[in-house]
Amino acid sequence: MGALEEAHLAAAAACGCDDDEEEDLVVLGDGGGEEEAGDAMEAAVRALLVGLGEDDRREGLRRTPKRVAKAFRDGTRGYKQKVKDIVQGALFPEVGVDKRTGSAGGTGGQVVVRDIDLFSYCESCLLPFSIQCHVGYVPSGGRVVGLSKLSRVADVFAKRFQNPQRLANEVCSALHASIQPAGVAVSLQCWHIPLPENLKCKSSQGLIRTSHSSRSGVFEGENSSFWNDFVALLKLRGIDMEMDSHSAIPPWCPLRPNEVPLCNGHGKRMTTNGAISPKSGSSPSNMVSAVSSMLLSLGEDPLRKELLGSPQRYVQWLMRFRACSLDVKLNGFTLNSASVYERPDVGATDHRAISSELHLPFCAQCEHHLLPFYGVVHIGYFGSEDGEGIDRSHFQALVHFYGCKLQVQERMTRQIAEAVYSVSHRGAIVVVEANHICMISRGIEKIRSSTATIAVLGHFLTDSSAKASFLQNIIDTADLEE
Amino acid sequence: MGALEEAHLAAAAACGCDDDEEEDLVVLGDGGGEEEAGDAMEAAVRALLVGLGEDDRREGLRRTPKRVAKAFRDGTRGYKQKVKDIVQGALFPEVGVDKRTGSAGGTGGQVVVRDIDLFSYCESCLLPFSIQCHVGYVPSGGRVVGLSKLSRVADVFAKRFQNPQRLANEVCSALHASIQPAGVAVSLQCWHIPLPENLKCKSSQGLIRTSHSSRSGVFEGENSSFWNDFVALLKLRGIDMEMDSHSAIPPWCPLRPNEVPLCNGHGKRMTTNGAISPKSGSSPSNMVSAVSSMLLSLGEDPLRKELLGSPQRYVQWLMRFRACSLDVKLNGFTLNSASVYERPDVGATDHRAISSELHLPFCAQCEHHLLPFYGVVHIGYFGSEDGEGIDRSHFQALVHFYGCKLQVQERMTRQIAEAVYSVSHRGAIVVVEANHICMISRGIEKIRSSTATIAVLGHFLTDSSAKASFLQNIIDTADLEE
Repeated sequence: MGALEEAHLAAAAACGCDDDEEEDLVVLGDGGGEEEAGDAMEAAVRALLVGLGEDDRREGLRRTPKRVAKAFRDGTRGYKQKVKDIVQGALFPEVGVDKRTGSAGGTGGQVVVRDIDLFSYCESCLLPFSIQCHVGYVPSGGRVVGLSKLSRVADVFAKRFQNPQRLANEVCSALHASIQPAGVAVSLQCWHIPLPENLKCKSSQGLIRTSHSSRSGVFEGENSSFWNDFVALLKLRGIDMEMDSHSAIPPWCPLRPNEVPLCNGHGKRMTTNGAISPKSGSSPSNMVSAVSSMLLSLGEDPLRKELLGSPQRYVQWLMRFRACSLDVKLNGFTLNSASVYERPDVGATDHRAISSELHLPFCAQCEHHLLPFYGVVHIGYFGSEDGEGIDRSHFQALVHFYGCKLQVQERMTRQIAEAVYSVSHRGAIVVVEANHICMISRGIEKIRSSTATIAVLGHFLTDSSAKASFLQNIIDTADLEE
Repeated sequence: MGALEEAHLAAAAACGCDDDEEEDLVVLGDGGGEEEAGDAMEAAVRALLVGLGEDDRREGLRRTPKRVAKAFRDGTRGYKQKVKDIVQGALFPEVGVDKRTGSAGGTGGQVVVRDIDLFSYCESCLLPFSIQCHVGYVPSGGRVVGLSKLSRVADVFAKRFQNPQRLANEVCSALHASIQPAGVAVSLQCWHIPLPENLKCKSSQGLIRTSHSSRSGVFEGENSSFWNDFVALLKLRGIDMEMDSHSAIPPWCPLRPNEVPLCNGHGKRMTTNGAISPKSGSSPSNMVSAVSSMLLSLGEDPLRKELLGSPQRYVQWLMRFRACSLDVKLNGFTLNSASVYERPDVGATDHRAISSELHLPFCAQCEHHLLPFYGVVHIGYFGSEDGEGIDRSHFQALVHFYGCKLQVQERMTRQIAEAVYSVSHRGAIVVVEANHICMISRGIEKIRSSTATIAVLGHFLTDSSAKASFLQNIIDTADLEE
């Protein structure tokens, strides 16, 4: 067992808590400085919560500053790691064939590790982005490197504030310098967190995807056969670099107004109601200062060129989720939740056709981790007696109202269900399916995990065939929407 | 930053090594006992290597005992973890609707986290198995639990010697006891490491898949609407529990002769050349004792019912990969590698049709971690002048010879390429694609990663169209084989 696990167990045993929820964790290493920095980070996060119109002492938010500070420190741990330490001791002698006759094994044979899942932080907006990383190298000097080291070295540079192309370049150079192979090839496919308004593009859930590559040594040059082999070996897994290369200068951070990508791919600047400009002045300066102080705590220089404007962009992103004191004033909705359940029971289900609005996209902010969770909402209800349905736009507005704030998925599901039930008295059913960035970019890193919640009200509780038909309808329409 | 990361950084800084390759790692916690146990574990692994006919001092194996000991300790860390510590402090008050009118939010609304990737150790043979875990629960008492805790609790029980059904039961009971919800549902899909001879079934690469579930509270009973909702919410992700339930008593560990599953699914006992019986006496007793002492070091009782016979099965598994001193005596192959490259250069490529044997399955043992890596080998060569090809069975035997031992993928690729080149003097090309259990079940846990290696000899080096045509052929035939 490494120090990693032992310390974990020791700490867990000492203070009765796990590494995600610790309150009074035993601090190891040069803990003094970390702790102080931690306090500064937490104060900054608290300032952000207050700036969002929230009560930072309410139950769901009480430990959010600690969690967010920890996530940022963990997510930027790469600054403290050294590539040499990782590769040292993992170089194994391996004979190879003579250069004259071929390339194989320890001299000249290419080794590619494909589909390494990583996460990094976008230096333009400080939000995490996800990466599918592929690394190839051609051994030289009769030495091969342990396969897992390619992933570990890539992670050192991913765990920093980055932009995708620099990440590819840094991983490539670091591997070249530490392994001293004949050459290194790095290919990345990166997904940026979507802006809520981009979620309207259902095809990719609004995710912005770009591809990047970097090469050294024998991989360089137009006609490098090693590069061609690398591309071919990726293709065996369905990864098509050639298709990606069409987007010459890929648009990246959607929060940078001078490179905002639109879903139609025409590269127009976004000037609709989703427009963001660093000059718009919409981000309170005390929140921006708080974020700058977080960067300082992490050992970063908020004044380095790439980070100029990033605190402001991060705050602008957060402010999309600010608490709203307005009641929902939607056509046909009166959300007086006290009265919702005071209605007299209606009689037996009349098996009128079930109405449903499926695959409504949303992007919410997890109040425990200050990271987005996004996905789709499916709503079912019994139509009104005159057969009139409710327009989809009303449901979209409802989902936006309950979704676009500091939330937890369980509460959001209930609130939408109650709202629908308040106008469709016979019954309402709501299913929310979401990917939680906090589940995949930190801590447990369960990349494929997804969370579903369901709320059932009124006749859907007793009419199991109505419920089954609604759920089947989601499956039947999934292909059309995705 | 938690103690976890700090200790890691501190340790890395102190001794210049990462948590995988440490030699003189600073031992934290109750390190004394751990270290002693570590020595015993490492001695046991060394005994296994010697028993396999290997030189435990050769470069590739020198630190294998340390790595294997660490992997076993890490893989069974769940014995030392407490569920209470994980859930405590992660229960959040959340209001819900009245039970009378519906189920939603904090009272009665179901929450499901799907597709949690986990790894565990099979208690019948001590090999790791992979798990796709789905957990649902219905909150009660106005409290919801942080979503990541469902995954963390499942992992506590996965990180032990297990069988899949007990794992499902234990996760279910532990969550029920710690969260005190209205009910818990757990569904697992498990994949056992295949036996080399089962790799002939190409459809699933010989992986043995079983499904298991466990439920408590409101999920119990034939007609539980909560259970039906759980099943429906899994179906939204393409997970079909109903389809799985047909295999009444699922076959599991293929190393237990009384429940050996065959690929044809008829449940016959395997009596062919792959037959294993605990009474066969093929496993040297000193190796079996070594494994028993490893279990003791891990704090396990080798005499508990479920572990009786497991050391023997583990050794029987390992012995399939024992070093073989025989030369390959295959029809048409004389592997005098000294002379392979002494042939005079043949003239220009005559563009005879390229012959290829693709998707040849193999299962090797990683010599760095004593864990399998398995996948497919693709072989291309120029046919002989009389147009006669080499029979596929010869290539299968060749792949088996170089694959079924302590290996690294790079060397195996080169060795196969050299062997093919020795009979097909014009040129040989070999691509190996593999999943490494050591990459996905421990350390970096890169579940989707896969490694490709390529060796190119003779005319394939200069004839890029021949190489491209071979590589395209792999893609074109992939669907047929999978």
